[in-house]
Amino acid sequence: MRILVLGANGYLGWPTSMYLASRGHEVCAMDNDIKKDWENRVGAAPLLPTPNLFDRCYKFESLTGNQILACNADVRVYRHLQSILLDFNPEAIIHYAEQPSAPYSMKGKEFCVETVDNNIVGTLCLLWAIKDKDIHLVKLGTMGEYGTPNIDIEEGWIDIKHNGREDRMLFPKKPGSFYHASKVAESQFIEMACRLWGLKATDLNQGVVYGIQTVETEIGKGLHTAFHYDGVFGTALNRFIAQGVTQTPITQYGKGGQTRGWLNIVDTIRCVELACLNPPSEGEFRVFNQFTEQFSIKELADRVASLCGTSKARVHNPRVEAEQHYYNAKHVELRRLGLEPHMLTDEVLMSMIEHVRRHKDNIILKNLHGDYIQWK
Amino acid sequence: MRILVLGANGYLGWPTSMYLASRGHEVCAMDNDIKKDWENRVGAAPLLPTPNLFDRCYKFESLTGNQILACNADVRVYRHLQSILLDFNPEAIIHYAEQPSAPYSMKGKEFCVETVDNNIVGTLCLLWAIKDKDIHLVKLGTMGEYGTPNIDIEEGWIDIKHNGREDRMLFPKKPGSFYHASKVAESQFIEMACRLWGLKATDLNQGVVYGIQTVETEIGKGLHTAFHYDGVFGTALNRFIAQGVTQTPITQYGKGGQTRGWLNIVDTIRCVELACLNPPSEGEFRVFNQFTEQFSIKELADRVASLCGTSKARVHNPRVEAEQHYYNAKHVELRRLGLEPHMLTDEVLMSMIEHVRRHKDNIILKNLHGDYIQWK
Repeated sequence: MRILVLGANGYLGWPTSMYLASRGHEVCAMDNDIKKDWENRVGAAPLLPTPNLFDRCYKFESLTGNQILACNADVRVYRHLQSILLDFNPEAIIHYAEQPSAPYSMKGKEFCVETVDNNIVGTLCLLWAIKDKDIHLVKLGTMGEYGTPNIDIEEGWIDIKHNGREDRMLFPKKPGSFYHASKVAESQFIEMACRLWGLKATDLNQGVVYGIQTVETEIGKGLHTAFHYDGVFGTALNRFIAQGVTQTPITQYGKGGQTRGWLNIVDTIRCVELACLNPPSEGEFRVFNQFTEQFSIKELADRVASLCGTSKARVHNPRVEAEQHYYNAKHVELRRLGLEPHMLTDEVLMSMIEHVRRHKDNIILKNLHGDYIQWK
Repeated sequence: MRILVLGANGYLGWPTSMYLASRGHEVCAMDNDIKKDWENRVGAAPLLPTPNLFDRCYKFESLTGNQILACNADVRVYRHLQSILLDFNPEAIIHYAEQPSAPYSMKGKEFCVETVDNNIVGTLCLLWAIKDKDIHLVKLGTMGEYGTPNIDIEEGWIDIKHNGREDRMLFPKKPGSFYHASKVAESQFIEMACRLWGLKATDLNQGVVYGIQTVETEIGKGLHTAFHYDGVFGTALNRFIAQGVTQTPITQYGKGGQTRGWLNIVDTIRCVELACLNPPSEGEFRVFNQFTEQFSIKELADRVASLCGTSKARVHNPRVEAEQHYYNAKHVELRRLGLEPHMLTDEVLMSMIEHVRRHKDNIILKNLHGDYIQWK
């Protein structure tokens, strides 16, 4: 299958590109390299530097014989995008080309507008570029779009009975940041494009992804993926691990009852492949909730503290979010398509801890303290 | 009350500014004058040219003694906006500063991105500018955001019972254009800003507005408001009237069963004043459905055809929309606050027809044929 990966040099884009190429797909990996600017703007850096996309594609091919076509382009530069679609003629596009951080989007007006411009305008350009083409759009959303409603979270759609009548509607969302809100808007835009233009799209509302090792990242040096542990681009679990490794007290925001869906990076790359292999029908906007387990922040903080022998420092929660809440999200569709989940065992946690420990000297200690500014 | 009107030189912004000033409010009227560019880009023009905002404010003051402060500024130019907020210190902001046309947003990628950039980024800049300030944001939305669901349309929020649990959620929307989708996204952003930052906002989901005469527009020459009759910026009713006046067959899209909420421009300006005078509480995102009557397109086409003695030409519908559908939208809150509706009587229709007849020679005939390109 010919698959175009957007945001292909990112934490998920790169392992996805290698995985798909290993599985015999033709892969074109596109990235505009803007992530480094975003990192610089907040003084963050991944544990290991991110290599140039062209270099690592060459490296991957020389080690495995599997080719990944690399290109440096921005989704928002329309003619460039159009020419890539014409040349590569993809059957599916996996869209990771997003500003991925909620705290980044909440730091101020410039950060917020940059997020919206990158995410929403990027997705709009993509929709216009695939209008009238037979391409399956696989869009990465996030479980965070739903927020924490007091009802069960369905997979994207909900049947609403109201005053004796009924309709199938998009599940109403309660985003908690402009990043999340940008993704909510994108989902709405894509659903509309499917309905009006007959596009076909899969929206993968992903839980928080953890893990840094896939079969392909372990093949050789330079094929690693990014590990962010700072308060802007790092997930809570990554930050806890970096705190554990450096014997810095683990900073759980507030009570820690915040519950979210989680999944292993190896499940992410399998899920996007499953979505590509099983496309929706023309005009269909399909939504899958892509996670395998639910954890509260407290559970994860406690487990890392215990494995690393570190203390916990409960800090004030910089976010406006419920710290105790109902959370029950459906996630059956990807299992139905064949996903076999990898669970967050202590072995998996220890292998992440060991990886970070090996590169411990790279950790910028000042970045371990969580969100730099308060969201309120 | 000190009220800042954004988009103050537009079809609704200008009559609103005059009305509020006449009612004793202090009014600052801001516009970036971009509407003329949008009109030029599609070859459209209002029936009478739109005067310069400064000139007409001066004119209005010289005729009535009521001052309107004019300023030329763009909501997206943040420092400019901030300095206006500092100088004028408004208690309420009425936000009309939007690209208002669905067909415009569907003409192509550039038009779509321009709409999203103006509407969504503009609103984001506004939210950041009023963060930490005690200002009531009155945002004009549209009933079109809801689309035509098969259930009753509530005023912005709906109580959803699902699997034995319950939550109050934003009413799920089904926009039919990127213009409408941009407004859906803005509503979501504003709701979030209220929830996270404690802002207070009223979202007025307005029906289609008709009418060109308010008490103030009739005071003197140059105080008129815009009448758009083309397929991009004109409403269906305006186009029908211009067709009727020029004895061009009236072009009803498809079967004409498309049903929407409608209201008179004098009710619009009263509604925004009512919203300002009765602000929501801190942190509240309040939604009112702002219309007074429901009509199908066929009803309106038939009435205008009959009043003008014109024939009807049923044309293919360039839009993807249901032509027969359930439609029952609540609109009780503004009545509760004191709105006394003006109905679309034959007298009102005739006065619009007479107004257009007086300026018949200004009508650009090629613009009477509806949407220039198909939405599909």
